[in-house]
Amino acid sequence: MKKATLRDIAALLQTTTKTVSKALNDQPGVSPELRDKIKLTAEELHYVPNIFGRGLSGKPQRTIGVVLPENANPFYSFVIKGLEQEATDADYSIMLCNSNDDLERESKVLRVLIEKHVDGIILTPAQPRANQHIELLQRQKIPYVLINRTIPGHDYPCVKADSAAGALLAGQYLLDKGHRRILHLTRASSVIAVEERIQGLRQAFQERGLNWSPDDLSRTCQEVSVEGGYVAMREILRTRRDFTAVFAFNDMLAFGVMKAILEDGLRIPDEVAVMGFDNVLFSDVCLVPLTTVNQNHIAIGAIAMQVLLDKIHGASSGDYPPVPAPYLVIRRSA
Amino acid sequence: MKKATLRDIAALLQTTTKTVSKALNDQPGVSPELRDKIKLTAEELHYVPNIFGRGLSGKPQRTIGVVLPENANPFYSFVIKGLEQEATDADYSIMLCNSNDDLERESKVLRVLIEKHVDGIILTPAQPRANQHIELLQRQKIPYVLINRTIPGHDYPCVKADSAAGALLAGQYLLDKGHRRILHLTRASSVIAVEERIQGLRQAFQERGLNWSPDDLSRTCQEVSVEGGYVAMREILRTRRDFTAVFAFNDMLAFGVMKAILEDGLRIPDEVAVMGFDNVLFSDVCLVPLTTVNQNHIAIGAIAMQVLLDKIHGASSGDYPPVPAPYLVIRRSA
Repeated sequence: MKKATLRDIAALLQTTTKTVSKALNDQPGVSPELRDKIKLTAEELHYVPNIFGRGLSGKPQRTIGVVLPENANPFYSFVIKGLEQEATDADYSIMLCNSNDDLERESKVLRVLIEKHVDGIILTPAQPRANQHIELLQRQKIPYVLINRTIPGHDYPCVKADSAAGALLAGQYLLDKGHRRILHLTRASSVIAVEERIQGLRQAFQERGLNWSPDDLSRTCQEVSVEGGYVAMREILRTRRDFTAVFAFNDMLAFGVMKAILEDGLRIPDEVAVMGFDNVLFSDVCLVPLTTVNQNHIAIGAIAMQVLLDKIHGASSGDYPPVPAPYLVIRRSA
Repeated sequence: MKKATLRDIAALLQTTTKTVSKALNDQPGVSPELRDKIKLTAEELHYVPNIFGRGLSGKPQRTIGVVLPENANPFYSFVIKGLEQEATDADYSIMLCNSNDDLERESKVLRVLIEKHVDGIILTPAQPRANQHIELLQRQKIPYVLINRTIPGHDYPCVKADSAAGALLAGQYLLDKGHRRILHLTRASSVIAVEERIQGLRQAFQERGLNWSPDDLSRTCQEVSVEGGYVAMREILRTRRDFTAVFAFNDMLAFGVMKAILEDGLRIPDEVAVMGFDNVLFSDVCLVPLTTVNQNHIAIGAIAMQVLLDKIHGASSGDYPPVPAPYLVIRRSA
């Protein structure tokens, strides 16, 4: 069955498409009898009313490609929520792709998005030191905004929280609580936030004339996930106990860290304090409600989309709306 | 700066596009000198190599529209992960829209997706008793598959777990543990899973010649979220204590329920047992590790996408791959 058009209805009733349109939209200028006949015919032909009559062709695509490491990570879930809300409100749709932090998959999905002529791209680069994908977007003249990860020495537009400031808050808080041996569980990848959090933590120590050495007191986990934090912490506890607090790269890792610590029979925070970073939804209802640093995920998504839409509309000023500053959320784990 | 093409390079070096293409792809038939010259020129012109040379036009869109209530709900996060993985592997992209369980927003995003000529649509209907959107997809001849929610009395293609079977398992487990007064915290909306879980729970009682009355022992929460579960449970505890277990509609609610119970000073599971449904990632690291019913979210997404792609390719057999049966995950909350 072909889709019925205004033209079909008009032909059947020997009237004009204009009259049919008027009748279906209850505008004046059509007799009540004809109006009823038109509506009945539209019904019989399963005519789809005017929400689908507008702009079916010739309209710009109005689609934003979104390439993030992993939509199911609650940090990115809420970034996406912010992106999607903002895009839909501006009559754009988002095309979502996970890179799984894999450079080849990122290459594939970017190619697809470019082939689909998206209006712009939001990207959290998989391996931020390998910037060929960003250069590609620039050469292809595709408006883009990075989220969360930028590349030192380049001024690519990027919306991110100030990780160093957040880690400084975490470090100051733990030092205030009397901790001096703070183990930092970080991630393997060379994303900029890794450097920034180490820098913030080190600064908290330096402010008090103390030293904190990542060689001694940081450990890397294989996978940034609850399981990754759990495995890493279990491994650490096998070989050392010379710390009184763990500052995890993010809340997901902190959840796994707490699981390993509790399984070991240690009390949180009395024997080991645990801090996270992000303040994801579940931080409040995890094993020991988590003391963490808030990042406003939804705002990061929404701002990134605003910046991108400005660029697309040629209204980019180079000034980006400020990302809300990170702040401490004190619960029970530290 | 205009994008450089094979033609530009060929013109500059007074050779053919075929030769340029051969040189750039290291195929035989080009002298080493010319090859080097071509590669150097391509470099200088910022020519984008062949991943973007293929299929830039005339190709089908290969896009699947996905309309779900809320991408940041961890249940849907993992459904999306499954959908996205499956789609990308089949060279499709997904266009993600949240309906926020709002019928008007659902109408808007479906209109946008149809205007974009997506190849098919995956939908979790916002208000499943209002099936005009499904009828619309049918009239528009757009292949679609529902996820998680179907409409009684219709045989719309739908991929969902067997909620009644899952709730039966939960009920049997709690009865085995000696519970007779089981409070069921359910959701306001008339989604089919609400009926199915009540049906499964009631069946568990009936199997033992016992009666369970939803009028007496079910309560509805305003919002299906951690906060919604918390608010509802706090309210319940103000007026009654005549239950020894709470079976929550899903894990998100269960997290909030546990928070309210613990704040009240009650012990889990000794004074009140708590069960959830879904087995989302965080069930393992929540306040009291949650005994729950597993739904395989990623599989639901992946299967839904397989069914839809079959329909798009005209290979639909009417037989859908089985969704893994729900099973109990016993932790510490019950």
